[in-house]
Amino acid sequence: MSEALQKIPGGVCAAEGYRAAALHCGVKRVRSTKDDLALVVSDQPATVAGTFTTNQVKAAPVLLSQAHLRGGRARAVVLNSGNANACTGPEGMANARAMVEAAAKALGVPAGEVFIGSTGRIGVQLPVAKITDAIPKLVGKLSRARSRAAAVAIMTSDTHPKQSAYAATAGKKTFRVGGIAKGAGMINPQMATMLSVITTDLAAPAKALQPILREAVESSFNRITVDGDTSTNDTVLLLANGASGVTLDDRNTELFESALRAVCLDLARQIVHDGEGISRVIELTVRGARSERDAAHAAKAVGNSILLKCAWAGADPNWGRIVDALGYSAAKIHPDKVDVYYEDIALVLGGQPVEGSEAPARRIAAKKDFRITVDLHRGPGEYTLLTTDLTEEYVRLNLSE
Amino acid sequence: MSEALQKIPGGVCAAEGYRAAALHCGVKRVRSTKDDLALVVSDQPATVAGTFTTNQVKAAPVLLSQAHLRGGRARAVVLNSGNANACTGPEGMANARAMVEAAAKALGVPAGEVFIGSTGRIGVQLPVAKITDAIPKLVGKLSRARSRAAAVAIMTSDTHPKQSAYAATAGKKTFRVGGIAKGAGMINPQMATMLSVITTDLAAPAKALQPILREAVESSFNRITVDGDTSTNDTVLLLANGASGVTLDDRNTELFESALRAVCLDLARQIVHDGEGISRVIELTVRGARSERDAAHAAKAVGNSILLKCAWAGADPNWGRIVDALGYSAAKIHPDKVDVYYEDIALVLGGQPVEGSEAPARRIAAKKDFRITVDLHRGPGEYTLLTTDLTEEYVRLNLSE
Repeated sequence: MSEALQKIPGGVCAAEGYRAAALHCGVKRVRSTKDDLALVVSDQPATVAGTFTTNQVKAAPVLLSQAHLRGGRARAVVLNSGNANACTGPEGMANARAMVEAAAKALGVPAGEVFIGSTGRIGVQLPVAKITDAIPKLVGKLSRARSRAAAVAIMTSDTHPKQSAYAATAGKKTFRVGGIAKGAGMINPQMATMLSVITTDLAAPAKALQPILREAVESSFNRITVDGDTSTNDTVLLLANGASGVTLDDRNTELFESALRAVCLDLARQIVHDGEGISRVIELTVRGARSERDAAHAAKAVGNSILLKCAWAGADPNWGRIVDALGYSAAKIHPDKVDVYYEDIALVLGGQPVEGSEAPARRIAAKKDFRITVDLHRGPGEYTLLTTDLTEEYVRLNLSE
Repeated sequence: MSEALQKIPGGVCAAEGYRAAALHCGVKRVRSTKDDLALVVSDQPATVAGTFTTNQVKAAPVLLSQAHLRGGRARAVVLNSGNANACTGPEGMANARAMVEAAAKALGVPAGEVFIGSTGRIGVQLPVAKITDAIPKLVGKLSRARSRAAAVAIMTSDTHPKQSAYAATAGKKTFRVGGIAKGAGMINPQMATMLSVITTDLAAPAKALQPILREAVESSFNRITVDGDTSTNDTVLLLANGASGVTLDDRNTELFESALRAVCLDLARQIVHDGEGISRVIELTVRGARSERDAAHAAKAVGNSILLKCAWAGADPNWGRIVDALGYSAAKIHPDKVDVYYEDIALVLGGQPVEGSEAPARRIAAKKDFRITVDLHRGPGEYTLLTTDLTEEYVRLNLSE
């Protein structure tokens, strides 16, 4: 049977039977006319899977979505930017419930099938009346053409909206997977996933969806880092409404996994490329580690080293700082067996600098995107992390909230 | 018996029977006339203790000093700045040996009693002939008055030399502890200690010295962080030559521990205050953790958060980022039990912001030095970390080596 995966437009509305809407209701305290409220709706009941921040401090919308996930069914996701509704206590939880109930009422669906995501400032109560008052109008704007508008409405310090969609074809059957996401700051690979809503018109039981989503998130959103800070609000939701007429089965599971991974990877890459104040994106692969776990330890130590991130901002390949970070990571290494490559240039072999390699490595490090490969020569473990440099602009952007 | 601890001048030569020297021999490749070679000598045989980096990548001088430590005796420490002699392979080890042998020969002492420390660029071979040629002249300059000169000679990006000394008196008996240190970049609390040489004229067997030094380092040098990067060269050496006529015994052990801790803390504070490109120093205490280990996890997550360090640079108390970092730390917390204080201002109580606290907290966060206390209300664990902000200047300084 022939299988094909094709990139398509439409984002979170690319799959059949989904509509989105966005508007400005005034969540942010500062003057802004940017849309700050978004809604994604499945026209028919959908199953749902979700992954959430591993931070022990979970925002009210995360706790509420986690509770609703137990039901396994979803009709809508309501999202706001400008306020994270985190560290807001019982009042924050009541506000999250009010948002969900307003959306459920306007849509005529059970509140337990409405999910919620918030992003923005921590520790400030939501102006919830502004949101609930705006929701009927928001519902009136629902359209298949508004994925981009919803992607814009959930942006905080992002500079571009993030959408992705793929059509997957197996023989004569086609289904679609698409989504939107936002990122920018507090981006870290330990289950940090920021806000993302992904939809598919495949039919699948929630129980089958959850491990597939977890796996896709693990190899995409969880492998990016901007600043090593894991947020209180990270949420990825996957809705499956079956509108394509295709049902998940043994023969198409792999294709669905590929399509979902393609969407997640695409959105994750867009998040890194739009990281706060970054000037370069580095695809860092550690291979030859004793285990995948060790490879991840090594990649995260290198990818989160402040000193290295500064060097990359300065287009300095600085293998000394790479070897130093490998050395203090939790991964076991033999210092005299480490190889470091910038693209195809071997900068370090057997722990020693390679003569004549610095000038070409410097040219690679001056690019906007480049690959670094570290080989530890200790085993089969491999891990790839997308990381960024650290610029004066990042510091300026984060001097205050 | 009356006991007293008094700060005294003299640094690493404050204790009886120690001399130091420094000169410029040209280790750095760039034009510089700054002294880059230092020597500290005990006029009579001394016992010795040492703590070293936990980085798996250990520089040649670290490996050589660790080997010599097994003998338990020391007569001298030779130190250079401008080149770390790290990741330099067998040639680097041969160069470290040559430095030690040149010093041993010029001083007429066994090479196994000469210790070595190097700091500076990683991965470049030492211009060892420049060093060995200069050592006889260096020995000729030895003087009790040259502690400061030695402290200057080991500086890299430090802006001030770091010295400290205390006289400890118990009844009619007095002994002294003093030292020099260097810091600035790659400063992290996981056994990261940079270069420091500490001397005492107390007599003590090496076996007794080692746990006392380890304890003092643990509560001083290991509790500071500038950038979270643990270097390949960190070394603290403690020499004890008995020139005071006082011998370590059950009655004066506590006094010696206090004096040693005072010197280590003083030097550690000087290192943080002279951290690369920093504008503020924060004394961060986490208390009420389940264990000291949990308190350390929490303090390190908060103290190394890039986002928080940027906020501090902007005089923004930003409790949201503190609670977020506590949440993703390995410490167990109850989000609704966390208190955060800036000096005596309660900014967060029970996980919620305290009304009216932001303006006074902002005034505290604008100071050059301030205290933050976090209470987790979960147990007896407490840990204090000295950390810094992260400035655009730090990024500029580290754009390349």
